[in-house]
Amino acid sequence: MAPRRKKVYEGKAKILYEGTEPGTLVQYFKDDATAFNAQKKAVIEGKGVLNNRLSEFFMNGLTNIGVPNHFIRRINMREQLIRQVEIVPLEVIVRNFAAGSISKRLGLEEGTLLPRPIVEYSFKNDELGDPMVSEEYIIAFGWATQQDLDDIVSLALRVNDFLSGVFYGVGIKLIDFKIEIGRVWDNDFMRLIVADEISPDSCRLWDMKTGQKLDKDVFRRDLGNLTDAYTEVARRLGLMPANTTSLKPTAIN
Amino acid sequence: MAPRRKKVYEGKAKILYEGTEPGTLVQYFKDDATAFNAQKKAVIEGKGVLNNRLSEFFMNGLTNIGVPNHFIRRINMREQLIRQVEIVPLEVIVRNFAAGSISKRLGLEEGTLLPRPIVEYSFKNDELGDPMVSEEYIIAFGWATQQDLDDIVSLALRVNDFLSGVFYGVGIKLIDFKIEIGRVWDNDFMRLIVADEISPDSCRLWDMKTGQKLDKDVFRRDLGNLTDAYTEVARRLGLMPANTTSLKPTAIN
Repeated sequence: MAPRRKKVYEGKAKILYEGTEPGTLVQYFKDDATAFNAQKKAVIEGKGVLNNRLSEFFMNGLTNIGVPNHFIRRINMREQLIRQVEIVPLEVIVRNFAAGSISKRLGLEEGTLLPRPIVEYSFKNDELGDPMVSEEYIIAFGWATQQDLDDIVSLALRVNDFLSGVFYGVGIKLIDFKIEIGRVWDNDFMRLIVADEISPDSCRLWDMKTGQKLDKDVFRRDLGNLTDAYTEVARRLGLMPANTTSLKPTAIN
Repeated sequence: MAPRRKKVYEGKAKILYEGTEPGTLVQYFKDDATAFNAQKKAVIEGKGVLNNRLSEFFMNGLTNIGVPNHFIRRINMREQLIRQVEIVPLEVIVRNFAAGSISKRLGLEEGTLLPRPIVEYSFKNDELGDPMVSEEYIIAFGWATQQDLDDIVSLALRVNDFLSGVFYGVGIKLIDFKIEIGRVWDNDFMRLIVADEISPDSCRLWDMKTGQKLDKDVFRRDLGNLTDAYTEVARRLGLMPANTTSLKPTAIN
């Protein structure tokens, strides 16, 4: 049995362990699903495996177009090696269509096309329920500088253009998504990179023809089987055999 | 029989007719293929139908992410209604991997990843063979201003991020592509929009696993049947029935 690794952090859906090389971490994807700030909880068999594979796929795609991110390589079904970053304590949300909190707050029907993509921020703090914050708040409290925010918006909009394309090509509408941003230092030069994960846990994805939800709202709103939805996303992106009913994405060794 | 429309312009692969509404044109996609500045010519049955459908698909995708372009609606199998623009006399080329002229000029093996996406320009002039030109030339000869070029680079890189995503999701590598840019006036305010077409005639597309070419190089280099290649692109993007062997994309009425 492998020696017990040092746990660095445990979140709701992932665990971080010390990495095998300096400046790296191992990111382990759990099957746990939570919603409404962990008031609703479940274990969804296979979710961790799917999100590990999907996040790898999206992060590799970002690497291809030169959007820096934390992904180094997948280790196994549930683990990937990532760069250790200093997380900016913000959830960076990009919305193309109204859904979730913006629909409630502004009384917009879900699915309404927004006048342009809107970037917004939540302060990452479970006790406070990840409250929405303005750029003014972020700068005043020193969570990020104006320059950081300019860079974060550029990154977030590039990720949006790219992911919108990925999903458009397979008949899925990217309603919104959340990313997190980390700081890394290369030769004393600070850079901001995409961190955390990109998966159906962190995106809202609607089938273009039927409007069927293929994301965590299936769990939040009890709309069916969550792994079926995530499997469908993986299947359309060529990450599963066409006729599979199993939870195991292909190309995992 | 419909009254003969006025032909506004005939190019190598498309014809422009007067549109049905002021400020519009009808863009007709021919089956003609040319290469090497029209020294090599052929009629490829079905190419026009495929490019009409594919260009619609990509332009609609750009509209969804807020990249302005000339596409209004498809009229029939071979025709689409577009906004009339004043074409900037440049081919705007974005390269992610070396291929074609940059490989020859710099001695780079085709498929070499470039250090970052490179935007370059050719002066649209058949007699001169569309010579490559620098920003200095473009500004000095008045084909576009520095501000225009800044806007054109922004547009081109957004198109690149989006198209890279579309193709990444269906297992295709976007090697490079060419767009053209047009000026339109909305309430006396000049805007630059994407014009011409986006299709396998204007992109280099390689299958991610096999490296198989799915673009006009199949014709330029006699690598097989061009419509088979374009049909494969349309099929992966869900624009053809899965098991089709016909040239007719679906959703054409």
